[in-house]
Amino acid sequence: MVPAPTKIAMIIMDGLGGLPLEPGGKTELETARTPNLDALAAQSVLGLTVPVRPGITAGSGPGHLGIFGYDPIQYEIGRGALEALGADFDLGPDDVAARGNFCSVDAAGVLTDRRAGRIPTEVNKELAKVLQTIQMDEVEFYVQTIKEHRFAFVMRGSGLGEALTDTDPHQTGVPPLPTCALQPESEKAARLVNRFIEQARQLLAGRQPTNMILLRGFARLPSMPTYQELFGLRAAAIAVNGMYRGVARLVGMTVLNVDGVALADEFAALERNWSDFDFFYLHVKPTDTAGESGEFSGKVSVIEEVDALLPRLMALKPDVVIVSGDHSSPAVLKSHSWHPVPTLLHGKYVRADGVAEFGERACARGSLGLLAAKDVMPIALANAQRITKFSA
Amino acid sequence: MVPAPTKIAMIIMDGLGGLPLEPGGKTELETARTPNLDALAAQSVLGLTVPVRPGITAGSGPGHLGIFGYDPIQYEIGRGALEALGADFDLGPDDVAARGNFCSVDAAGVLTDRRAGRIPTEVNKELAKVLQTIQMDEVEFYVQTIKEHRFAFVMRGSGLGEALTDTDPHQTGVPPLPTCALQPESEKAARLVNRFIEQARQLLAGRQPTNMILLRGFARLPSMPTYQELFGLRAAAIAVNGMYRGVARLVGMTVLNVDGVALADEFAALERNWSDFDFFYLHVKPTDTAGESGEFSGKVSVIEEVDALLPRLMALKPDVVIVSGDHSSPAVLKSHSWHPVPTLLHGKYVRADGVAEFGERACARGSLGLLAAKDVMPIALANAQRITKFSA
Repeated sequence: MVPAPTKIAMIIMDGLGGLPLEPGGKTELETARTPNLDALAAQSVLGLTVPVRPGITAGSGPGHLGIFGYDPIQYEIGRGALEALGADFDLGPDDVAARGNFCSVDAAGVLTDRRAGRIPTEVNKELAKVLQTIQMDEVEFYVQTIKEHRFAFVMRGSGLGEALTDTDPHQTGVPPLPTCALQPESEKAARLVNRFIEQARQLLAGRQPTNMILLRGFARLPSMPTYQELFGLRAAAIAVNGMYRGVARLVGMTVLNVDGVALADEFAALERNWSDFDFFYLHVKPTDTAGESGEFSGKVSVIEEVDALLPRLMALKPDVVIVSGDHSSPAVLKSHSWHPVPTLLHGKYVRADGVAEFGERACARGSLGLLAAKDVMPIALANAQRITKFSA
Repeated sequence: MVPAPTKIAMIIMDGLGGLPLEPGGKTELETARTPNLDALAAQSVLGLTVPVRPGITAGSGPGHLGIFGYDPIQYEIGRGALEALGADFDLGPDDVAARGNFCSVDAAGVLTDRRAGRIPTEVNKELAKVLQTIQMDEVEFYVQTIKEHRFAFVMRGSGLGEALTDTDPHQTGVPPLPTCALQPESEKAARLVNRFIEQARQLLAGRQPTNMILLRGFARLPSMPTYQELFGLRAAAIAVNGMYRGVARLVGMTVLNVDGVALADEFAALERNWSDFDFFYLHVKPTDTAGESGEFSGKVSVIEEVDALLPRLMALKPDVVIVSGDHSSPAVLKSHSWHPVPTLLHGKYVRADGVAEFGERACARGSLGLLAAKDVMPIALANAQRITKFSA
């Protein structure tokens, strides 16, 4: 890597890739009226990115790691760590996190409902305060409400391993399990977790239907090189949802404040901080929300809103612009999907495809080809003239 | 691999890939009038090759290893070895090579100029003769002028390791360093290099500004399977510059004599030796020279010259023809670049794209796709019917 005064902006429309409503029809992106993106596409290289591996539907964590330039299989984020990131919890490298449930047990301690009748989130918040009173000398515990019966559990201390079995037996009619260490390095963590659960049981006794807890998916964050280390970039993240802020923090990005939750507020944060960083990641959540809800025209509208905001980015004169997604979320599937993601890379030195259209089929014919999402960042850095020659 | 009477010819136009002068314009290759290449393209498969990895700008060494069929990261050629190859030095597998500088030190031995004022190459040649008088029992030393203050240093003997630190401190105001062995196997080499440097210091004393030497980038050649071993090919190389002759020698090609330095002389060597080999690599240097000098129309002219010579190759009736480059060198960038390289593969059994044009955009739409350069040779061998079926 070489220092350069160039700036790279990456707009990630979550779940961008789509499908037509009817065979032969247009996708959400192809349907959207996007004059600004189309004009940019004409001066860009287009391609389709594969977030993880062909045929694999990526979750938000691995989808983001991929387009950020990391192999999501090499750097797997465990369930517990993802839950904590999603709660915007500032998870440290030594913290052990887990997914928690409030649950119901009978007088004999046998599990009768793993989800405690999906209690209201407000009840969860009250119970989290109760659990938060548990204190031990060696470690700190954090219990953060997610929603209904779900919470994120974090244990902070030194010498804590993550190789711990679930206390959730994944069935009723049996008692919750104690956690067991799968490696000697995790024995201290196992002992402390089991003590925490015992105290939780005592504190929750009599509070039917939420008289017990289950923990599963114990995990620490993967240890990964930061954007500064890997790419020599001072990177900033603009996102309003916890998960995306968390993944950005994980790779060493500075997470910027956004005044408000609208897309225009995110672009305002971009403008305000433009002079202070080399790289900007701007996350657009509502494309995925619409896709997962099956709202084809809603997703089209969000894409059009991003298109209308694009001139505010271009006015800042970025050297390299990437527009892509972390995975596909076609409205017809109402879920994430395995389809490759439309991707545009713009810069002064791209060998432009000359196609004035940003859509799945235009991208399928683009000269970036079908590429691993993790390969996009090296190409962006090359176009920003931030990579030296390999050998002579 | 299976023996076959077929012949493969690979024309490498150095730095072939380009960029338009203006957005939306044509590249050097697209601008060139190439009726013969265009006609060949119509009966070929086209694609774009990635020499090393996406976004990585390849040097000439790794660029050639890639299109020769090797992974340039697996077989990295160290700096010193590249310098010796570039000087057309016949580097052996046990030789340890380094990049050398004549430099200036003051009376206290402190470095005052790492490049000795960039002395004329003629002075360098005289000094190289002086250093060449240094003799020791166990090893032979070679000092070969590159240009100005630069020379290639080679130590030949047995039991010499390459894990040696630079004697060049990469700054002035401090004395040159002795080399240190980083592994026990390199201790003998370190002792001999330091004795060489001490004798050089004595021989150069008083010859300001060139009264000392610096050595850096100690390296041996990577050990790699030859074309004969890997592909079962009797391979020949036609190139007039040292570097390319050296890399070809490294993979076991026979480097042919060329009478003259013109492209037509290289094609004459091809004709003269046609019956004696299965594979021919013919290197065209001036495309890169023009690209690196920023001479767009000069590069266009070289491509047109190659096009005019192509019928001499086709008259020999090769079974498979590859036309490609080792990397891109767009005139607008005046340097090597990361852009994928236009590649054509012709043979009786290709599933031809039917596009009568050899250019970057035609190749971007070609059915070879965007592929690693190292994958071209297996496809060429298949088309030459030199690969047997994988299992049954």
